[in-house]
Amino acid sequence: MLSRYFPILIWSRSYDRQTLTSDLIAAVIVTIMLIPQSLAYALLAGLPPEIGLYASIAPLLIYAVFGTSRTLAVGPVAVASLMTAAAVGELAAQGTPEYLAAAITLAFLSGLMLTVMGLLRLGFLANFLSHPVISGFITASALIIAAGQFKNLTGVPVQGHTLLELVHSFWAHLNQFSLATSLLGASAIAFLYWARKYAKRSLAALGLNARLSDIGAKTAPILSIAATSLAVFALGLNHQGVAVVGVVPNVLPSLALPAFDIALWSELAMPALLISIVGYVETVSVAQTLAAKRRQRIEPDQELIGLGTANLGSALSGGFPVTGGFSRSVVNFEAGAQTPAAGAFTAIGIAFATLFLTPLLFFLPKATLGATIFVAVLSLVDLKTIRHTFAYSKADFAAMAATILLTLLAGVEIGILSGVGISLFLHLERTSKPHYAIVGRVPGTQHFRNILRHAVETDPKTLSIRIDESLYFPNARFLEDTINSSLAADQAIENVVLMCPAVNFIDASALESIEALNARLKDSGVRLHLSEVKGPVMDRLKRSELLGALGGNIYLSQNDAFEDLNGG
Amino acid sequence: MLSRYFPILIWSRSYDRQTLTSDLIAAVIVTIMLIPQSLAYALLAGLPPEIGLYASIAPLLIYAVFGTSRTLAVGPVAVASLMTAAAVGELAAQGTPEYLAAAITLAFLSGLMLTVMGLLRLGFLANFLSHPVISGFITASALIIAAGQFKNLTGVPVQGHTLLELVHSFWAHLNQFSLATSLLGASAIAFLYWARKYAKRSLAALGLNARLSDIGAKTAPILSIAATSLAVFALGLNHQGVAVVGVVPNVLPSLALPAFDIALWSELAMPALLISIVGYVETVSVAQTLAAKRRQRIEPDQELIGLGTANLGSALSGGFPVTGGFSRSVVNFEAGAQTPAAGAFTAIGIAFATLFLTPLLFFLPKATLGATIFVAVLSLVDLKTIRHTFAYSKADFAAMAATILLTLLAGVEIGILSGVGISLFLHLERTSKPHYAIVGRVPGTQHFRNILRHAVETDPKTLSIRIDESLYFPNARFLEDTINSSLAADQAIENVVLMCPAVNFIDASALESIEALNARLKDSGVRLHLSEVKGPVMDRLKRSELLGALGGNIYLSQNDAFEDLNGG
Repeated sequence: MLSRYFPILIWSRSYDRQTLTSDLIAAVIVTIMLIPQSLAYALLAGLPPEIGLYASIAPLLIYAVFGTSRTLAVGPVAVASLMTAAAVGELAAQGTPEYLAAAITLAFLSGLMLTVMGLLRLGFLANFLSHPVISGFITASALIIAAGQFKNLTGVPVQGHTLLELVHSFWAHLNQFSLATSLLGASAIAFLYWARKYAKRSLAALGLNARLSDIGAKTAPILSIAATSLAVFALGLNHQGVAVVGVVPNVLPSLALPAFDIALWSELAMPALLISIVGYVETVSVAQTLAAKRRQRIEPDQELIGLGTANLGSALSGGFPVTGGFSRSVVNFEAGAQTPAAGAFTAIGIAFATLFLTPLLFFLPKATLGATIFVAVLSLVDLKTIRHTFAYSKADFAAMAATILLTLLAGVEIGILSGVGISLFLHLERTSKPHYAIVGRVPGTQHFRNILRHAVETDPKTLSIRIDESLYFPNARFLEDTINSSLAADQAIENVVLMCPAVNFIDASALESIEALNARLKDSGVRLHLSEVKGPVMDRLKRSELLGALGGNIYLSQNDAFEDLNGG
Repeated sequence: MLSRYFPILIWSRSYDRQTLTSDLIAAVIVTIMLIPQSLAYALLAGLPPEIGLYASIAPLLIYAVFGTSRTLAVGPVAVASLMTAAAVGELAAQGTPEYLAAAITLAFLSGLMLTVMGLLRLGFLANFLSHPVISGFITASALIIAAGQFKNLTGVPVQGHTLLELVHSFWAHLNQFSLATSLLGASAIAFLYWARKYAKRSLAALGLNARLSDIGAKTAPILSIAATSLAVFALGLNHQGVAVVGVVPNVLPSLALPAFDIALWSELAMPALLISIVGYVETVSVAQTLAAKRRQRIEPDQELIGLGTANLGSALSGGFPVTGGFSRSVVNFEAGAQTPAAGAFTAIGIAFATLFLTPLLFFLPKATLGATIFVAVLSLVDLKTIRHTFAYSKADFAAMAATILLTLLAGVEIGILSGVGISLFLHLERTSKPHYAIVGRVPGTQHFRNILRHAVETDPKTLSIRIDESLYFPNARFLEDTINSSLAADQAIENVVLMCPAVNFIDASALESIEALNARLKDSGVRLHLSEVKGPVMDRLKRSELLGALGGNIYLSQNDAFEDLNGG
């Protein structure tokens, strides 16, 4: 029981020296990768760089205690950072203490929501973000993030939360274009893109073994940071319009509860919920992918608690919302991490960097961080899924296209909410119209098939309907409508047989509909019969008054019904 | 095509003298019943009495043009009036022009929403009010309405929108108790209750035929109005603390568009939506019940337009939200109404009453109207359905109980919204966990059954799972979780067969889940196979990349899969 809520109790029991070695190596590699990402995503969220480092310490330590994935790496990620900037930007100006306080509160609320959802085992709620919607949302978010990076990459003070705002402000402030910044930014992008695509192969061609080539390629972001910082320092570019990170406080975060401000909480509740759900969906998806590769398993409901407590930890140590990151988790996995202890060691690495390496960041140009973000998010633009969804299902494509367009044009919150709304709408529409067939008997057999598809025997006085779905409130009225229309159209019908082999469940709404149908049919001189009702459904019906009031009979098989009514 | 949107074009073609006679008789009876109800429900909504009459003129004329039910009688009803009072009471004080303007705007918005939903054929959205929720909501509303009538019935100025507020203000103002009012109120309740229960039988015992006894019993409310008005006039009770209706303007409504006030519209949008949906559900349910008795049919989507335009008409002629009323529609039906023309004649009757009978209402005590409401709404309290739901389904009962409690304690809007929320929640929870079975072969047959229920043959290296549900986004993750857990628990498995005879549909989310599953299984050396995939599902899968990437095979039957994998 205890180990269900504290998965650390399971894996720590068999922790040995070999596991420790694997975890330590993975931690070093992830730390190297995480430092530039933490700084960059803090910048993306509109926060000071050290907040990105803070969000990469406590959450990793806490996830090691509560998380069920052996290899997930939590921390600041691109989409959650964009959503943070969008939500907090509504309430305060970047750089103010109110902005930082709102971002911390957002992490706190998100952590609270996720933890409570986990304790109540509400993970299934995340199912209602359909894949096309989440995929479209991430693609659109990536485009907005990439467009927003023109600020860091060119010096033009681009601003806004939608594509139109960004493009418009780019043109409006084009006079502030900085050539030095742009050259730095373009070089960094070119280098990072090359590193992502070809560095591993090139290093292997130079004779390094596969593992070392891989690690070498992973150091590209930190190399780009070092190289561009040196360039700025050597050429004095910070005096020629190149924005640099500047002084980063080299202290560890202090623990503090966010202020309880009911007005702020209620304004941030919806964004916190959206960040929680989007973050959770991504986290579970990454964690499940990696777990399956080693035939391990994760507990989706416990992952809510893991991610929730990680966010609470982030908030209490002055950080912003965190999520399980895809690329860093893959790096962690491939670097050989065996347990969440690797994450804890990474946290120690980041803490070390915060204490001792931050002075080195003074000359780090923001253009390099912008390039890091730009290259990272462009890999999130998923044209393949858009193409496949279009080929596979027009309804799903419509939901996806609407999500993309609304996210680009109206911002992340409206985009994701509309996506969820459209998914639910399409779901309700489909559910409310279950598949059904008017059936007749295949001559010479006891089989009953759709009269529209097969040459079958029917009795003009009997209407036999097979509903291929459980009967419950979304489709309760459909049944009434369907049978009423059939009866109004054919006045000869004296018997209606509801054939129920596919009905696994009849809820109170559907029961009431069937009772109402039965009463109405009685009034107009038609008898309602049931056939092939499953055992558990019949057990439940026995607790209702339907069986006593039923105008007709209950038949074990549709053939019994057909012979009895046809013969009688 | 035209007649789809104007059902009047259908029934008016065969309109003859006999139909006219039937409709006229029904109209007279409904008019007599509707006058006291219109006055009473205006009082309940916190509006001047003439507004109730206005809401019983234009809507009936318009419904006769656009409605598909032959016998539905629209007009002010109890629950919509309560919801109007709750919504408008938030924005303005009773008796002010702002209060009236808000009530009119509410009818306008509700009419607009219903009409647009009808044109877009969105009637299925109403399915998401499950029967237990709507039944619980109406029961709770009836209790609140009944409690609120103690104001009119005792003179104690009871106020509030929740049961606690009402009870509390009753005790707080008990010193204003009026004996004369209470005696009038109690007498009226006793008489109306007797009339509802026994008058028909007593009149029949006196020798009247069934039809006349029935009509006689229907005149009870108007008799109680006449008798108590006379009593007030004769005894001068209006000078002894008995509140009377007073001067009612004897003019017909003038037509006017409600002012376009964006702030007011946005505040009333949610209440308007709730009134629309609750009203529509009730309307369709009444209309369908009556139509089925004569084997006629209604068009649920056109009913949205019928009810919507009726509400627009109400708003343009200074009325408040209207709905298809249950009791008056039954009276209309039983009195022999053949077409919606009966409703139009009723409207003319009400217009006549407005012009010529309003002076007679001066001495009408509000206690009589309170008694009319009290007796009418107590019949809405549906303990039987509560009992049956409890016996039939605990989940449905929980939704119902929550709706009742929240409506009583937190008001109608929170009550109905919570009910919808709980229904959706339960629906999502159920949908996200479809029924599935791990199957094996029944020895000596080609049948595959649940290994938990039957003694079957299995192959330790093969996991065969039958999912009894279409695969789509709410349950996409469930499939992944289920198979991942099974594989993590049993390392010997080398083949997974997904048996799909019950899968009618695979959406893009589920496809992506299966693709991800396939990729993960491949990574861990397990092959994924499909069996018994239906034709339309297979056609669609051929448009995806799954079939090319599938680690295993596609088998026509589960038996083929079993023999191939077991033999190999």
